[in-house]
Amino acid sequence: MKKNVGAVVGLYPTPVTIIGTVIDSRVNWINIAHVGIIALDRISISMHKSHYSNQGLTKGNLVSVNLVSEKMLAAADYVGMVSGAKVDKSKVFEYESGSDGEVPLIKDSPLVMECRVVDNYKTESHDHFILKVEHTHVEEENLNSSGKIDYEKVRPILFEMPTRTYLKTGDVVGKCWSEGKNYK
Amino acid sequence: MKKNVGAVVGLYPTPVTIIGTVIDSRVNWINIAHVGIIALDRISISMHKSHYSNQGLTKGNLVSVNLVSEKMLAAADYVGMVSGAKVDKSKVFEYESGSDGEVPLIKDSPLVMECRVVDNYKTESHDHFILKVEHTHVEEENLNSSGKIDYEKVRPILFEMPTRTYLKTGDVVGKCWSEGKNYK
Repeated sequence: MKKNVGAVVGLYPTPVTIIGTVIDSRVNWINIAHVGIIALDRISISMHKSHYSNQGLTKGNLVSVNLVSEKMLAAADYVGMVSGAKVDKSKVFEYESGSDGEVPLIKDSPLVMECRVVDNYKTESHDHFILKVEHTHVEEENLNSSGKIDYEKVRPILFEMPTRTYLKTGDVVGKCWSEGKNYK
Repeated sequence: MKKNVGAVVGLYPTPVTIIGTVIDSRVNWINIAHVGIIALDRISISMHKSHYSNQGLTKGNLVSVNLVSEKMLAAADYVGMVSGAKVDKSKVFEYESGSDGEVPLIKDSPLVMECRVVDNYKTESHDHFILKVEHTHVEEENLNSSGKIDYEKVRPILFEMPTRTYLKTGDVVGKCWSEGKNYK
């Protein structure tokens, strides 16, 4: 028996990301899990317009989208709790510079995407940044023997909003375009 | 040590959804995991323009977005393998009608959102439908004592594209805006 809980977004869990930018020559991080995939080459991140971090996401800019491992969780949550307008968060994560020599890539992240800001699909309250993926950096131990990303190894931390909880990525249960052959 | 694997979308895993529509008076289902969250009231689904199912997602239409439990997996994968242009998929899932008396809601799904198509952010290859959530129906056993959705009970099936694999939702590892207090 189902209960109608109202107009609640229930499309969870989603991967937690740390967005790395440079604002006024200082590295800044923010935790964003309201993310999405567009076509086969773009992703999106939805950020309330009040955030300081949005300044680092102007069109044409390169930003980093860092997945979160369990050992990064306290720091990942922290950068979502304090604003870069008041606190210097640049040293929360160790980083190296990306392909433009500037965008910060988190060393401890299991998977980092360098993305170009190509558009902003604005709503009343949010900037919904459209990011084109340019380079994806993966810890070699997280690649399978064919060089593909193995999410059972990456095990990104996930998020759900209704009770504001972080969850693990679980085990593999089947293959796409294969399980369906068992449907009769 | 990280390896640059190219311009690969790595923002996984994401929840698998079954999109329920009515096309030419017939119920149709398709499996979509390239999804996203926009602001606090909208979600998005990205569908290649070649799909038959896109016809059911014209602006103003009500559609259903059904999360997938483990027992639904074979059927869920199947509706992503065959086209509604060639195969009548209407009986793959048992359903009841939504608030408009028409949109089909999957009985076995642990969580179903009725959504209004409010926009289409088109790319060269894809329709990226923007959906406003109007009603969310959750199996009562999946709500916690405060009436909130408990994703450790819902345990939606997730997807990743690089090796086309389905994964489980794992266990809770922490609370948002709380773990960060442990960061020093």
